[in-house]
Amino acid sequence: MSIIGVGLLGGSIGMAVRSALSDCQITGYGHRKETLERAVQIGAIDRGTGDLKQAVEGAELVVLCTPVGMLGELLKGMSDFLTQGAVVMDVGSTKASIVETAGRILPSSAAFVGSHPMAGSEKRGVEFARADLFQNALCITTPTDRTSPAALEQVEEFWRMLGMRTCRMNPADHDRALAEVSHLPHALAAALVTMQSPTAMELAGKGFLDTTRIAGGDGGLWRDIFLDNATNLRAALGKLRDQLEAFERLLEPSKADELRRWLDEAAGKRQAVLQEKLREVTPD
Amino acid sequence: MSIIGVGLLGGSIGMAVRSALSDCQITGYGHRKETLERAVQIGAIDRGTGDLKQAVEGAELVVLCTPVGMLGELLKGMSDFLTQGAVVMDVGSTKASIVETAGRILPSSAAFVGSHPMAGSEKRGVEFARADLFQNALCITTPTDRTSPAALEQVEEFWRMLGMRTCRMNPADHDRALAEVSHLPHALAAALVTMQSPTAMELAGKGFLDTTRIAGGDGGLWRDIFLDNATNLRAALGKLRDQLEAFERLLEPSKADELRRWLDEAAGKRQAVLQEKLREVTPD
Repeated sequence: MSIIGVGLLGGSIGMAVRSALSDCQITGYGHRKETLERAVQIGAIDRGTGDLKQAVEGAELVVLCTPVGMLGELLKGMSDFLTQGAVVMDVGSTKASIVETAGRILPSSAAFVGSHPMAGSEKRGVEFARADLFQNALCITTPTDRTSPAALEQVEEFWRMLGMRTCRMNPADHDRALAEVSHLPHALAAALVTMQSPTAMELAGKGFLDTTRIAGGDGGLWRDIFLDNATNLRAALGKLRDQLEAFERLLEPSKADELRRWLDEAAGKRQAVLQEKLREVTPD
Repeated sequence: MSIIGVGLLGGSIGMAVRSALSDCQITGYGHRKETLERAVQIGAIDRGTGDLKQAVEGAELVVLCTPVGMLGELLKGMSDFLTQGAVVMDVGSTKASIVETAGRILPSSAAFVGSHPMAGSEKRGVEFARADLFQNALCITTPTDRTSPAALEQVEEFWRMLGMRTCRMNPADHDRALAEVSHLPHALAAALVTMQSPTAMELAGKGFLDTTRIAGGDGGLWRDIFLDNATNLRAALGKLRDQLEAFERLLEPSKADELRRWLDEAAGKRQAVLQEKLREVTPD
């Protein structure tokens, strides 16, 4: 198999595959020689190359692990060299545009399956890769009418082999939901840090640091995600603004009971999700 | 000494004082008999009472640990029974109104010092109390021209005995800074949970749960804080809105570089605070 982009996710996939399958040859593609050497050292890949043809030729499975903004160019660059019957998948946080692009660019002899493993870290780079990154996390696949059912099952089987639960969504629904539950929170965390006065920042406690942890993520990666999902993100920003206005209207002593209810409902809704998540990772 | 309100903070103060001083008699005040019994069981207080007179009579130090909204009533209720020379302090997250109220209500024979130990948890209740809750955290005292210097030093010494670092701010500056770095993040976390569609909520991952952790806090407590600090909170909301608008303007492919810079600067600013905090808790 071939891993295109050997950072935190690509490196972790290599390590996880290695620990699940003993006889799999993994080729890593990347620009930086040191990164590829490091990936070989930690056992994430067998060999590294900066040549896309070499990287994908003969590979039955090609996993795209670069930032979302580079995927189009890479698909174009590899399409002539893909093996007959190759399955191509990605790990991007947005799905509609990549699924559409892959359908347009890749030859009919290859099958594309969009997928989004919801695992990661605000850390970046192959040095933070680990084989258990995907354990118990959720992977969303985004098949369309044009997706090969056999390739879809193969991709789902792949993620399950790495310890993930899988579910299917259509690409547009995926992007809309992720804008709300992942992309907006990231933008908010960054805005919250940026707006702080120096005096306030000195008083930052554990709560603030937890709330803004995701703002520590890689700027280039998130810029790509935000631009790719801008329309849904604007809609999510609108929903948030409505909530903040509702909150501000409750900032009156005469609205104390409503304010309390608003807060309790939020706490209850979060608690319900937390319980749900705990049930998922520790099934009876 | 006397602890008025034996919840997470009051209970933890009792336990921490007990482990620092062997010969201190601690009286706890509260409405619920079971809570007081529990507090005695875990060693947070020596005896519990539901009578404010009994609670404060003879106490050299009275620590108010109830939600902010109840402080005024309690001060009124205890002012006639305070010992000559008693020092009264609180642990509230807002300071301007309580400092003003205490100055107005308490007899001149007692000294009030506002303080805000920045330690806590989204959990509530004496059952989560622990003696090390305050270790290495920051406590802000908020003296004014009218504060007794001797009482101020006594209160700072008290918090340092519990493992805290201390700093001084005037009450208005404190409330403005806390609105930005603590109260707004809490409101945001609640708004972020509330706005989620059911589909999005199902996809909530670790990032979302971290970002919204503080939304799990006690609704009554936070309602009091929000109402007491409403003016500063509105100003902080305005600053956040400005940032979100700046962000939305950058959601264009032509602004990709500026968007990247905005994200990188936020990540850098957060990283700097994180380093600062780590230095504080692990001095050379």
